[in-house]
Amino acid sequence: MPTALKSYLNGKWVEGNQSPATLVNPSTEEVVATASTAGLDFAAAARFGREKGGAALRELSFAQRGEILRKLAKLVIDAREELIGLGISNAGNTRSDAKFDIDGASGTLNFYADLGTKLGDAKVMADGEGVPMGRSARLYGQHVLVPRTGVAVHINAFNFPAWGMGEKLAVALLAGMPIISKPATSTALMAWRIAELWANSGALPEGAFQFVCGSTGDLLSHLGAQDVLAFTGSSDTGLMLRRQENLLKDSVHVNVEADSLNSALLGPDGSAGSEVWNMFLTDVTKEMTQKTGQKCTAVRRIYVPADRLDEVRDELVARLKDVRVGNPADEKVTMGPVATAQQLRDVRAGIEKIALGAEVACGGAKPVEGQAKGFFVSPTLLVRKGPKIDDVTNKHEVFGPVATLMPYASPRELVALVAAGGGGLVSSVYSDDKAWLNETVGGIAPWFGRLTISGEKVSGQTIPPGTVMPSMLHGGPGRAGGGEELGGLRGMSLYMQRVGLQGPRPFVEAFAGVKSQAAS
Amino acid sequence: MPTALKSYLNGKWVEGNQSPATLVNPSTEEVVATASTAGLDFAAAARFGREKGGAALRELSFAQRGEILRKLAKLVIDAREELIGLGISNAGNTRSDAKFDIDGASGTLNFYADLGTKLGDAKVMADGEGVPMGRSARLYGQHVLVPRTGVAVHINAFNFPAWGMGEKLAVALLAGMPIISKPATSTALMAWRIAELWANSGALPEGAFQFVCGSTGDLLSHLGAQDVLAFTGSSDTGLMLRRQENLLKDSVHVNVEADSLNSALLGPDGSAGSEVWNMFLTDVTKEMTQKTGQKCTAVRRIYVPADRLDEVRDELVARLKDVRVGNPADEKVTMGPVATAQQLRDVRAGIEKIALGAEVACGGAKPVEGQAKGFFVSPTLLVRKGPKIDDVTNKHEVFGPVATLMPYASPRELVALVAAGGGGLVSSVYSDDKAWLNETVGGIAPWFGRLTISGEKVSGQTIPPGTVMPSMLHGGPGRAGGGEELGGLRGMSLYMQRVGLQGPRPFVEAFAGVKSQAAS
Repeated sequence: MPTALKSYLNGKWVEGNQSPATLVNPSTEEVVATASTAGLDFAAAARFGREKGGAALRELSFAQRGEILRKLAKLVIDAREELIGLGISNAGNTRSDAKFDIDGASGTLNFYADLGTKLGDAKVMADGEGVPMGRSARLYGQHVLVPRTGVAVHINAFNFPAWGMGEKLAVALLAGMPIISKPATSTALMAWRIAELWANSGALPEGAFQFVCGSTGDLLSHLGAQDVLAFTGSSDTGLMLRRQENLLKDSVHVNVEADSLNSALLGPDGSAGSEVWNMFLTDVTKEMTQKTGQKCTAVRRIYVPADRLDEVRDELVARLKDVRVGNPADEKVTMGPVATAQQLRDVRAGIEKIALGAEVACGGAKPVEGQAKGFFVSPTLLVRKGPKIDDVTNKHEVFGPVATLMPYASPRELVALVAAGGGGLVSSVYSDDKAWLNETVGGIAPWFGRLTISGEKVSGQTIPPGTVMPSMLHGGPGRAGGGEELGGLRGMSLYMQRVGLQGPRPFVEAFAGVKSQAAS
Repeated sequence: MPTALKSYLNGKWVEGNQSPATLVNPSTEEVVATASTAGLDFAAAARFGREKGGAALRELSFAQRGEILRKLAKLVIDAREELIGLGISNAGNTRSDAKFDIDGASGTLNFYADLGTKLGDAKVMADGEGVPMGRSARLYGQHVLVPRTGVAVHINAFNFPAWGMGEKLAVALLAGMPIISKPATSTALMAWRIAELWANSGALPEGAFQFVCGSTGDLLSHLGAQDVLAFTGSSDTGLMLRRQENLLKDSVHVNVEADSLNSALLGPDGSAGSEVWNMFLTDVTKEMTQKTGQKCTAVRRIYVPADRLDEVRDELVARLKDVRVGNPADEKVTMGPVATAQQLRDVRAGIEKIALGAEVACGGAKPVEGQAKGFFVSPTLLVRKGPKIDDVTNKHEVFGPVATLMPYASPRELVALVAAGGGGLVSSVYSDDKAWLNETVGGIAPWFGRLTISGEKVSGQTIPPGTVMPSMLHGGPGRAGGGEELGGLRGMSLYMQRVGLQGPRPFVEAFAGVKSQAAS
């Protein structure tokens, strides 16, 4: 009998009363747990969060909220080995994939804990400099960020049950907003265990953290003007959420991180064997195969100078052939299955779609040899010669270990091709050629939330483009959802109202927690 | 034959080919002009803006863009007398109302021109401090704001044809985005004349400014990921725009400034004859009657300590009785008509709706004596005893010279009542009582984009709460639309993509225009 996973709502662990969803081991297709939220009272949970959790959090200083995050991080770190096991059994993670997820969660929690310490005793945050408003210095303007008084609902994607939950939670709680967190049901086991550790630890004020294991039922229909919805997942689901009438009507702040056709660009100076060449190949291989390519930041489109297309193809194929696909319970395996049967169907269909206009250099849609069970797919490199703006590669994201290699002739053509992806989370650029970098980075910058530039001077020090850093923005325009998460303190503005105070300088400065520099 | 107003699209003044709308003088009901956009090519206009205007603006530095704004401001200032006349004849403005609108436009343009000068030779804007990313100082992160490469569509409300157009334009052009500006058709005459002065001046790069006089046709259906829509008007129209599928699908950045149930709060220390009392009464009277109450920032709900309800009512009634309603072509008139026949119907219906649970202390829904023609309404004060969360006063905005006076018993009750308005642009608070101010301002802050605090120390220096300052945010949560305009440089982020650059410090800093403080 598999474990029936409960939800944590209204201060209690509760279980739905019918039609549970099943969570499986994607390597063996065995059921590992079930989850149901049918019949649970989501309206009460939203009220409980707002009334109990919000009030309690707003009483705490940033430093105190930060200390809570530090405790939550420690609980994750202390359970690391157990959590790795759950990543292997329920998400098809290799040990390394599971660590990436778990350490991402604890690292981000600790980063925001440190920001809390720096912000100290304050409970609201001054935003920018004050402005003298009138003829004398007495009338003064100052913008302040204050916590919204609603509840933040977090809907996370199946690929990062730990990190996704941790990063959204860290920012919201530090800002002073209570949360209701929902992992994707298919891979919820790790998130559920973390939620259990957190909820039962006593580290959190009552109502500050609630957890939905399964469907959110009618929860979103109870959100209003002071509430927040942060979603990570497919653009189709994002669009469905955005259309919801009460969210539109009450101007509910909705942040969407969606599909993204991220790109990696090799500069004209990246000749075989150069530093830039090596950095490029290492990153691309990692971004294609880490987490079996199931990262919103993974590379989907690879652009290289036309005269280097064959060389790059051969080198990438050689590296991808070294990847060992299988059940990550076997430590020799370096890439696990995709997370669900549906993902496998989607990835195979996506490969076939792209292969209509491209050559399959390695991998492909066919079953992986020697795997009778499980949702396995081979690392797949496609090569498309003569790429165009309207190509399917610029429209369809294959959410697996799949990317398309393409040539470009000029920086101008390259910028147009990259932009044709319609907006992404990250692009990586590999070059030391300043003129080329200026033109390329300048041209693609409006289309991404983050850009990494790798050149000789930072060789051996770069962070792979798919790794989301808490100090840098995570989000992107257009098809990436138009959202902004993380980026240090920037991320907190989703959970806070920016209000401009105009009034007597001493009151305004005291309210904002700004030390007056006015002559008294 | 009234003037047929043209639109300025694709570099030419063009006219629609059928069913023109009529613009009338709201004091006399005479037709003053007509406008049609039927058959105009909006898809081409959007492309023209993006390709010609955007490219040209992005080549200019902030200082150069600022100089354009300075020229546009001067054109408005030089035409001030003529524009006042158009405000009187087409919008029912008094001279003072028209000046408020026109000077608001030129003042905001000059404010952003000065910001351009300060930003200097740069073309993109560094956002916040840089962050060392790696083990050495060489790998560096810096967020940058770069202009979006689309077109910004501005849809303005009927109440501020000059200011509305000017403030949105100033921010967008300084950010480096071309605009297509559309005034409300009913009062478009002043905006049209300004557009004519601007377009014909040669001050603007080709494609940077286009102007729609009449319906926007299918324009919005051509917007995509790099475009922006900024709308000011009713929440119903705002909601209709937000629902539009292509805007949702492409994550088009949409900013909405909508209805707002702004409030004025008198503190417990505001006894009759005190400084605070006088400031409160002066502001409330002005906010009720300026522009015939047709301001998104006007006061709709007035809260006073229960024991001062009668005194405040008597004093406000006395002041409102001094208001002379009539055709503002007569200089003795101090308040003109509302802008359209539809507005008049809505205002009368709104007064009747609120009067169901309130006493009419002065004014009311009945026709104004001695006015056979024109859309006149008397300044109307309603008094509602025992206000509750669910009252119609917290739900329905009457967009005219109408407000409801209500008592409160405690700061706690007051905060709940004010919050029940569901989010507003501005609230004004009148007190020197620090404990009361802390509780009240702290409680209502998450519900507003701006708060003004008036006390003895700033007596004679305050700016009325309904006056939108370019240095302070304009926007508010919930029913106010959840938008953010102005606020100095803050407003520019609507028109720019925030992108985090991670790479070699010298390149990153050079791109961001940041002077390196790293040891070389």
